Formats: sequence, C-alpha cells, structure tokens
Amino acid sequence: MTARYAVGVDFGTESGRAVLVDVADGREVATAVYPYANGVIDERLPEPFDNVELEADWALQDPADYLRTFGAAVPEVLDEAGVDAGDVIGIGIDFTACTMLPTTADGTPLCHLDDLRGEPHAWVKLWKHHAAQPEADRINAVAAERGEPWLQRYGGKISSEWFFAKTLQILDEAPEIYERADRLIEAADWVVWQLTGVETRNNCTAGYKAMWSKRDGFPSPDFFAALDPRLENVVDDKLARSISQIGTRAGVLTERAAALTGLRRGTPVAVANVDAHVSAPASAVTAPGTMVVIMGTSNCHILLGDELAVVEGMCGVVEDGVVPGLYGYEAGQSGVGDIFAWFAERAVPPEYHELARTRGVDVHAVLEEEAAKLRPGESGLIALDWWNGNRSVLVDADLSGLVVGMTLATRAPEIYRALLEATAFGTRVIVDAFESAGVPVTSIVACGGLPQRNELLMQIYADVTGREFSVAASAQTPALGAALFAAVAAGPELGGYASVAEASQHMAHLSPRTFEPVDEHHAIYSELHREYVRLHDLFGRDPDGVMKRLRAIRRRAREGVGIA
Amino acid sequence: MTARYAVGVDFGTESGRAVLVDVADGREVATAVYPYANGVIDERLPEPFDNVELEADWALQDPADYLRTFGAAVPEVLDEAGVDAGDVIGIGIDFTACTMLPTTADGTPLCHLDDLRGEPHAWVKLWKHHAAQPEADRINAVAAERGEPWLQRYGGKISSEWFFAKTLQILDEAPEIYERADRLIEAADWVVWQLTGVETRNNCTAGYKAMWSKRDGFPSPDFFAALDPRLENVVDDKLARSISQIGTRAGVLTERAAALTGLRRGTPVAVANVDAHVSAPASAVTAPGTMVVIMGTSNCHILLGDELAVVEGMCGVVEDGVVPGLYGYEAGQSGVGDIFAWFAERAVPPEYHELARTRGVDVHAVLEEEAAKLRPGESGLIALDWWNGNRSVLVDADLSGLVVGMTLATRAPEIYRALLEATAFGTRVIVDAFESAGVPVTSIVACGGLPQRNELLMQIYADVTGREFSVAASAQTPALGAALFAAVAAGPELGGYASVAEASQHMAHLSPRTFEPVDEHHAIYSELHREYVRLHDLFGRDPDGVMKRLRAIRRRAREGVGIA
Repeated sequence: MTARYAVGVDFGTESGRAVLVDVADGREVATAVYPYANGVIDERLPEPFDNVELEADWALQDPADYLRTFGAAVPEVLDEAGVDAGDVIGIGIDFTACTMLPTTADGTPLCHLDDLRGEPHAWVKLWKHHAAQPEADRINAVAAERGEPWLQRYGGKISSEWFFAKTLQILDEAPEIYERADRLIEAADWVVWQLTGVETRNNCTAGYKAMWSKRDGFPSPDFFAALDPRLENVVDDKLARSISQIGTRAGVLTERAAALTGLRRGTPVAVANVDAHVSAPASAVTAPGTMVVIMGTSNCHILLGDELAVVEGMCGVVEDGVVPGLYGYEAGQSGVGDIFAWFAERAVPPEYHELARTRGVDVHAVLEEEAAKLRPGESGLIALDWWNGNRSVLVDADLSGLVVGMTLATRAPEIYRALLEATAFGTRVIVDAFESAGVPVTSIVACGGLPQRNELLMQIYADVTGREFSVAASAQTPALGAALFAAVAAGPELGGYASVAEASQHMAHLSPRTFEPVDEHHAIYSELHREYVRLHDLFGRDPDGVMKRLRAIRRRAREGVGIA
Repeated sequence: MTARYAVGVDFGTESGRAVLVDVADGREVATAVYPYANGVIDERLPEPFDNVELEADWALQDPADYLRTFGAAVPEVLDEAGVDAGDVIGIGIDFTACTMLPTTADGTPLCHLDDLRGEPHAWVKLWKHHAAQPEADRINAVAAERGEPWLQRYGGKISSEWFFAKTLQILDEAPEIYERADRLIEAADWVVWQLTGVETRNNCTAGYKAMWSKRDGFPSPDFFAALDPRLENVVDDKLARSISQIGTRAGVLTERAAALTGLRRGTPVAVANVDAHVSAPASAVTAPGTMVVIMGTSNCHILLGDELAVVEGMCGVVEDGVVPGLYGYEAGQSGVGDIFAWFAERAVPPEYHELARTRGVDVHAVLEEEAAKLRPGESGLIALDWWNGNRSVLVDADLSGLVVGMTLATRAPEIYRALLEATAFGTRVIVDAFESAGVPVTSIVACGGLPQRNELLMQIYADVTGREFSVAASAQTPALGAALFAAVAAGPELGGYASVAEASQHMAHLSPRTFEPVDEHHAIYSELHREYVRLHDLFGRDPDGVMKRLRAIRRRAREGVGIA
C-alpha cells in the first residue's frame, strides 16, 4: 500500500505554516512557512490607507495573507516531499483564537471591499487585539448582574480578546460596519469556508471564545439586548446556531481551492480548530489525567475531564471542545517566555551578553547554564510571574511582576532562575486548582517553543509540580494537530482514522527524554511554593491591593493628573 | 594677622585623607590621600602570613597604614600649600567606627608583635567585620532577658559591628589573644594615642559603639559576667572608665609624632571622633531641627535634640555625642549607593553601558538622565531598599530587597528611579519615627559622596520627605569636621574657637543650590509612601515573614541540607 498523507496548516500570529504528515506514523515529511505580507497590523493600515493610524492595543490582520499561505506553503510541501496530490487524504487547519472578521453573505471580508478598505473595523481582529476591554467589562458586568449561568464556565470573567467583546467594539465604534457585516466569523472558520465553499462554525472557538455550549447554545437574546438593543439578534443575524463538531469533516476542497493549494478537488477538509487545542492530541493526549502545557511566550494548559467541574479561574470548559466525548478544560499563564525574554533584553548586564557572543550562543543559553548550577532555594529569591497580568486562576490583567529577596550579592542568573521557577509555581497553582475541583492531573506533557530548548525549565517544572514531565516529539504540534484532524476528517475509508484518539495513537509521539521530579528538589520547592502562594494571595486576591493602587497612581501620573 | 590652619585627618575604609583648612573660613587649602598599603584585609593576612585565610564576613586592617597616613598625607598638604607648620594650630582625626584593636599596655598593636602577626584576631577589626553576629545575638539575648536599661538607647538591638560583639568574638575564638591584650581600643583613640602619647577614649565611639553613657557609664560587670564569666571585668581590665569629651583636647603632639607628621611638637590634638558624627558640624548643623544625612554606600542620619527620647529603631542616642550639650541621635540605612551600584553593575543591559561609553560618562549618569524624564509614579514600580538589610527602624540584617510592579514594558531607568525613590522613602520612615517620638525634623542637609553628583536623587529626597534639602559645600565633610574639632581643641588663645558651634559657624558652609519639594510631586510621593509603608510593615515587621523564610531556605540550600 502506498503512503497516505495529510496536510496541516497552522495559522500563527506572524506567519502560516504547512506541514505534510505521513498518516501512518505522523512523520513530518515536509514543512513550509509563509510569513504574512502584512504581518500584524498594529500601527497603521496597509497601503494605500497607511494614513489611517490605529489606536493603542489594536492588532489586525489581512485575510489575504491566509489565502496566500494556502497558495504558497501547501504547494511547497508537496513539491519538497515529491508527494502526489492524489496521496493526500485530507487537509486540516488550526488558528489563533479568537481571531475574527466581518464578511458579506458570500464570505468576502469587508476589508476587501473597495469602499471599506480604509476602515479599521472592517479588518480581521487578531487574538491579541486588546482594545475591546471596555466592552469586555460591560459584558462581565451585565452577565454578573443578570446571573448568567454560562459565566462560571469561564472562571467568572470573559476576556477582551473574545468574540462578543470584539463584536461589541465594532458596534460601539463603527455601527455602519456592524450593519454592513452579513456575517461575523472566526478566521479559523473563514479559511475553511474558503477551502470548501461551505460556512461552518467549529465548536472549539464557539465554546471557548463565544460562550456557546452544546447544552445551552449561545447566551440568550435577552442578554445581548441588555448589552445593547441592537445586539439582541446578533446570533441569528450575523452568526449561526448550527455548530460543527471538531473531528468531523467540514466539506471538501472546491475547484478553486484545489487550484490554490495544488491538492485535488474533493479532498476532505476538517472542521476548523484552535492551535492550543489541537496540540493536545498532537502531544498524544486524548484522555483525562494528563495535562498538556503549550509553552511559549505564554502558557496554555489543556486538560480533559469526564465530568463538568467548576475550576477556579479557568479560561473555559467546553464539552467535546478538545476531544469529542470529554470535557476540555483550558487555563493559562499570560506571561512565560516573554518574561524570560524581557529579562534577557532588559535586565542582564553586558558580561553575559559578551559570553554569549564569544560562545556563539543566545544569552538565554548562558543564563540557563549559570542558573542550572544553583540548587533550588539557593538564591533566596522568589518572584510572582505577573509581568503580563494573571490569566489563571486570578483572571486579572492589572496585576504585575514582583521579585523579593535581592541582596548585594544577587546575580542575573539567580533572578533568571527565580523567573523560571515563578512560572512553574504558577503552573502548580493551576494544577492544584484543577485537583481541588476534582479534575485529576497525574502527569504533564509540554509542547510548544520552549520545552525542547530548555532542559532546566522542564526539570524545574517537574520538580515544582512533583509530576513527570514529558515533551511532545514534534516541534510544531499545532500544525501536526491540524494534520491529525485532517486524517480523522478523511476517515478510515480513505486511509485515515475513525477517531481523534486513534489518530493520536498513531500520529503523535513523545520525546524519549522525560523529566522526573527529584524528591529533594520537590520538597524544597514545596516550601517555596507555599511562599509563592502566600504572595500570590496577598498581592493577587486583594481587589484594592498594592498592585492595583500602583496601577491607579501610574495611570494618573501618565495622564498628568495632579502632576506638575 | 597671619592665617591660621588646622589639619583634619579622615581615616576611611580604603584610605586616609588629610586636609589643611584655613581656620578663619573653613577654606580647604590642600588635600592628600594615602591609600592603605594593606587595604581591607578580607581574604588572607598580609605576607608573610598570606597562607592564613580568613573566614567569610571578616574584615581587618593594618594599624601601620594609619601611621603611614600621618607620615605621608600630612607632610604632603603642608608642602602642597606651602604652609609653615608653625601656622598649624591643631590636628584632629575622625575614623570609621567601630574599628578596634587589641594592644599591649604601651599601645603596641598585638599584630605588630612577631609571635602574633599570623593570628587574625591580633589585627584591627574594621567596622564592616561582620563575623561577630553570633556574639551580637548573644549580647542582645542576654540584655533583653536581663532587661538592661541601656538597650532602648540603641533601638532595642546592638549590631555585630560594635565593640563588645567584636571583643566577645576574640574571647570566644582566640582566648589567648584576649588574654595577651592589655588594652582593647577604638582605632580612633589609638591613633590619637600615637600622636599624643596619651591613652584617651572619646565619648562618641564609647557612646555609640560601646553602650557607654555619661550618666550610667558602661554596662555592669554583672551583665558582662552573664555573657561570659571571663568578661566580667573587661572594662576595668582592658578599657578605661574615664572617657574624654569630643570637642576637647586629648593632648599635644609628641616629638616622635611631630617628626612623623612634619607638624610642631606641642601642637594640640583633638579627642578622636567618628566620620559620620563630625560631618554634622561640618555641614553647618550644631542645633536641633536639622537632620544631617551622610549619603554614600549607605545613609547615616544624625539629628540633635534637647531631650532624651526613645525613637523606634534608631542606632543610638548619646548625650554630648555629636555636639556637647545636646543629645545626638543616629539612625541609618544599610544600603543606598551600594544598591544603585549593584543595579548599575548587575541589572543594566548593554545599551545603556554603550550609551555611557559613547558619551564618556558613567552608566549612572545615563540612567539618571533617563530616570529624570519620568514623572513620579509613572513607572508603576515601588521597591523596598533592603538589599543590605534594614538598619533603621527595623534593625534587621536578614531583610532583603523587593521590587513590585514590573510589566513587559518596564525599562532599566524606571527600576533605577524606583530604587532612588525607595531609599528616599526609607529616609522618610526615619524622619517620621523621629517626629513621632517628639524629635522635630524641620529641614535636612545632605553630605557625603552622593549628593553633589546626583541632583535627581536630591530632588526626589526633597519631594518624598516634603522638606528642603541643602547640600554641604564641602565634598569631604569628615576631614573638614576633623579639622573643625582641631580648631576647637586649639581654642581661641591659639586662634581657634571656643566651641563646636562657633567653629562650625565660621568653618562650615552649604552649597547655594537647595532642593525644594514640589507640591504636586510630594502629593503623589505621599501616596506612594503609604504603599511603601504597607510593604515595609508587611515584609519587615513579621518576625516569621517571607524574607525570613527565604533566608532560612537559602541557608539550608547552601548547606545542602535536604538537597541532592
């Protein structure tokens, strides 16, 4: 029997990535990356509208970049591998989320209409568009006041990044764009629409980003009317009530999409999915008990459970949201790799940079090597890893970083290690929150950008959590995950798989190297973790705490209120 | 009338400094510095005993370096100024304290005896010799248990740097050296002994470092016996009960001392004094109300009062200890300039160092320039300035540094400014402690190494404390102060002065530039100060707080207890 292949396309923040995967064993045969021509649009619109400046916290994308990814990266992997399109049994995609856009009824992005190209609200709002905070605040306030039952599935608070916050911002600031939009849709579903000609909406983004659940659907028209009377029928007018299950087929490639990608017309296309969530089966996790931590600039934690539980401060829980038949829990840490990067760039003296230059390595490598020489607890330092706020369990963007324990002898690698440890303590708080709520976490698999490069970090996570840490074998679990869902969309009849679990069993692998907690380290880290939790509660749980007051003072200082 | 001159000799940590001063107006005519040949001895004894390694926290000096200072620097200033020794009406000295040594009955340092030169305990113990902490702990415990009345004059705790802690360490670790020592004496008094041939003991070091007071003398033999039976008669056996008042004459130069210094035999010599304390009259402060802050690696605060008050956490209060007729209060911050230096060396990224190199300035200058652009409160940061522990008002060496409020946008100059501010908040806590105890602080004069170089720092101190900050005109207030006391020791009959106040009036000056608090800055800093005080109390007043536990964990980690 000839080999069968699946294509996964991962739509990231700066680029799109296609991977061609052997369905039999998950081998990644070829990879191609397309850097978005218009990248992240966060200062001004692309030409000829580059006179339109964006306000702070905006982050847009150009949907044409998504199509260019299909057109550039997919043919490239076929070509590089010398694989015939006839041997590709399916294509799947994963996307950042919530990344959403307004379109016409036929799926044309409003920003591609000549008369709307100069309107910022006509473009794709990227996941990290943070300008809808006032709208998120309003949603949270109205939901809390009305006692909306869905609120607790999201740890009591929804994010400014999510679907209806962004929708409400369009309505607030550009009602004519809201009016012109026949559809408001996740970019994930939009690209699948472009491939298949069929508008589907996946239950992963609907569940995690648009407050939808299998049992209760979307929030009620009454709720939306309470936010704004014009929003009452937003679901029926601009979305759809039929939601497609991940792990199923959205449709097949159209003639046009086949021409674009170089694949065959009729090739099955998987229902759209999300980068973090597809990483779970791509990390060989399709059952309860093993937490997947996607580690990069931030951490995202995915955990499966048999039952619905209310877990403090989680980002969300969605039935069938990660693997059909199970509850998929998501939690997160809003700053991890980007805190380490901040430190390396902003707080490391020249000697370490020079050492890195001499050795031809990154300054992180030098810091890690020095930090690895320290014993747990030896630095006398502890930090709160809130440089970018706290996503779980406190769900509070206004918190900030803290380091305590410095002496005149404190050196940069000691602080660096304290920062690594702080993110590990943050993960342990999340693990403990799940376990307290009755969702067990027996072991952990890490994937993403950080784990394969940072052995010290992995060992610290194992030592701090007291759990075995494995690392996904793939360096590109989102793209692999997308291909894995493609194989499920193809199904056994085409040489694919009958279920996500089965596909994962064959296509996902772990690195042979695992990180076992060292008892003595775990003991001392448990002591330090108690200190972390004390500081965490002291600084994080007081609604009028020091960090909040510092923010308020900073705000006034920046606005020049009461300042000469 | 021909000009009359006084010589002040300032014995610092790394060098001795002589200054020749015009008695009429305090003009510093010539200055010479002698860097100690043996510097600070903190790793091994000088040759030929460089095989003797010192333990951690030891810091010794060689008394020969003090004599070499007289022999090198005093002739040099006379020569440089072209002043005839006959026009020098007196010589005074100031010293670091407590810096003490064991000698024979004739004043020969034990470390100058051939058979004891290889014994570390035979050498001078420098003020920053910190190895006597166990002995200080024992003194504090026994004093507290016995309810020793003198304890509250020292904020409830004496330091490991002080006289009897060092004495007890000699007894504990080298009883044969203790036995051989006919005298235990402050180096300040020892150098005066070398000049005059007369053993005197000044009331400043006796009061601030050896628990002596004019009314009660030294602690009782019962107390010393409770520490160690062998110590019962330490005062009568090794010290003396007659204490000389600062501002008086210790004696006159011997023939030998005249030959050494190039001054005339019979030149009056002032009773020894301490660097920080002589800085008060040298900063034109001889009356209650104005605090003197000697700012350098650490801050020392000197304040005069009409009455004896118990001020929380002060270092000490000594009647007649700074200016005869008044109570002299001392408080301190154990880390100031050395925290800024730590930051500049350990936590500033290459770009600022490169900028400094390009401009041919110190990296501090670049940081200060950038920090000066910020408004108070704008960084959103606050710090606790305890990198080197807290001297006042908490009197706790085990406390450590804290910074809170970091975000991914935080830059080095913001942290730098937060550290400057933290030391200013620390000074305000001390000012408030004095005022709460009924000792008024209406204005402040700064002197020492930092104020003349750091305008931003001065402005921040003024803004934070809400008080006018002046800066002493002299860049070497200790040496000037020593000369000022020399002029008093000479007295009016020789062209000097009748009192410290009169001498100060003529010889001490302030810079024309003063720093006035800006109302708007003071308002916002008062808000931030409340946050500082909350953190100060939270982290500093809990005897089993986070910082203490981090220290305990660190200690165990370093000792490898419970660590693989």
